[in-house]
Amino acid sequence: MDTQSPIGVFDSGVGGLTVVKEIMRQLPGENMIYFGDTARVPYGSKSKKTVLKYSRQIVHFLRQKEVKAIVVACNTASALALDDIREEIDIPIIGVVEPGARMAAESTKTNSIGIIGTESTIKSGIYSKFLRKLNADITVVARACPLFVPLVEEGLLEDRITEDVIERYLHELKEYGIDSLILGCTHYPLIRNAIKRYMGGEVTLINPAYETAKSLKAMLAEQGLLNGAGNAACYDYYVSDGVDKFSSFADRVLPCHVDQVTVVDIESY
Amino acid sequence: MDTQSPIGVFDSGVGGLTVVKEIMRQLPGENMIYFGDTARVPYGSKSKKTVLKYSRQIVHFLRQKEVKAIVVACNTASALALDDIREEIDIPIIGVVEPGARMAAESTKTNSIGIIGTESTIKSGIYSKFLRKLNADITVVARACPLFVPLVEEGLLEDRITEDVIERYLHELKEYGIDSLILGCTHYPLIRNAIKRYMGGEVTLINPAYETAKSLKAMLAEQGLLNGAGNAACYDYYVSDGVDKFSSFADRVLPCHVDQVTVVDIESY
Repeated sequence: MDTQSPIGVFDSGVGGLTVVKEIMRQLPGENMIYFGDTARVPYGSKSKKTVLKYSRQIVHFLRQKEVKAIVVACNTASALALDDIREEIDIPIIGVVEPGARMAAESTKTNSIGIIGTESTIKSGIYSKFLRKLNADITVVARACPLFVPLVEEGLLEDRITEDVIERYLHELKEYGIDSLILGCTHYPLIRNAIKRYMGGEVTLINPAYETAKSLKAMLAEQGLLNGAGNAACYDYYVSDGVDKFSSFADRVLPCHVDQVTVVDIESY
Repeated sequence: MDTQSPIGVFDSGVGGLTVVKEIMRQLPGENMIYFGDTARVPYGSKSKKTVLKYSRQIVHFLRQKEVKAIVVACNTASALALDDIREEIDIPIIGVVEPGARMAAESTKTNSIGIIGTESTIKSGIYSKFLRKLNADITVVARACPLFVPLVEEGLLEDRITEDVIERYLHELKEYGIDSLILGCTHYPLIRNAIKRYMGGEVTLINPAYETAKSLKAMLAEQGLLNGAGNAACYDYYVSDGVDKFSSFADRVLPCHVDQVTVVDIESY
């Protein structure tokens, strides 16, 4: 495996670009291949069996691109598919759940942590499991927020309707008095300002993307896979559907313009 | 082809059950096979190429079940895939768009018709095309309403948040003074009361499901395919993912309990 080989990053759709952005910032020398499963998005309401099948197809595609490591930049896939896939491949793979949980466990002072995510992520209970493994005294309050993704995709980032939905979903977490809140879905950082306003200044919002990029860097260093070539990094984007929509979303999230996006028939992998 | 063969009905997910309900009512003797593509739902934000590919796989599956006719109970698939598929098969097939458009053209007195649906249905312009073919004097005001499906799936049928979203999407149509509004997505009839309250009593809501069942009956009669056996009808339900969620939604929509739902690996068709 070459250190100049790209890192493969995948997500159910466009949300994983918030993780790509963080990797670009923390690991500016690394080449990346991104795959967004825009034809089958969202994963958050689907079963483990289906999410695992889709994830395996994507890993197969990324391996053909000779990636040196894989980042599962989707909370639902990290929750439902990562454990199985890790046993099936021989390159390093990392998800967003474990780094996010670790960051929350380090940040909390009251041991009361909130976690929000898709229906499938919350139902899996995986964040609670990791948090309790890190610190058995931690209390976790979890809430699925199925409307957040469509609201973000509709572009209602600063909007009264989004504020009302935030209040509806988060009032119990607020009353409970958590001091840290994990944004357990890659779309949620895009409405973090509105969430922060509602939850108040004393609650720390945890964006797993930051910690995931940090963990990725440590993992690559440990395995001697960090790219020291110092060339300008190269980014390739692949989707299973809808290039235009992907590009316009990418331009909103990423610091650099996305020139080319290629459609892949992912079902054939 | 046997008159007792089932009718195949398909949708991107659960919404098509509102069409099934209407067929049960108007054609109580007909056997039905329903397929909901719950693993790849929603179709409304996806491209023609992808929706056509998925629809072809489902038609292939239904044909193996020896259906005598097919109902595309999904507005997006009717808009993007029906024309192509009709040329590829030798059994009768009907969508929801043409019947819905005909009903609206018959109902309007002012020739001002509103149409709401998913992003892909509205972008296809197919309702406008059919309406203008029926009556060149008709003015069509179209609006995509991407949040309606997630709101229905979240169960917020009577809710202030849903009312706010309705106002946001429909205020232009209301100001325009349409007298008929086509509910161009099978989920929308589930929030018709809230839509009706907002639009006011003078606006007729058109649910294409009713007219689709009527057109189906006429089509079967014309081809000598109506089931005259008079036995109790038999209904079979298939999905690509998530049996439990499907069953609980079905129990909310259908007049009879859904006993058994079978998962199909639709990508292999």
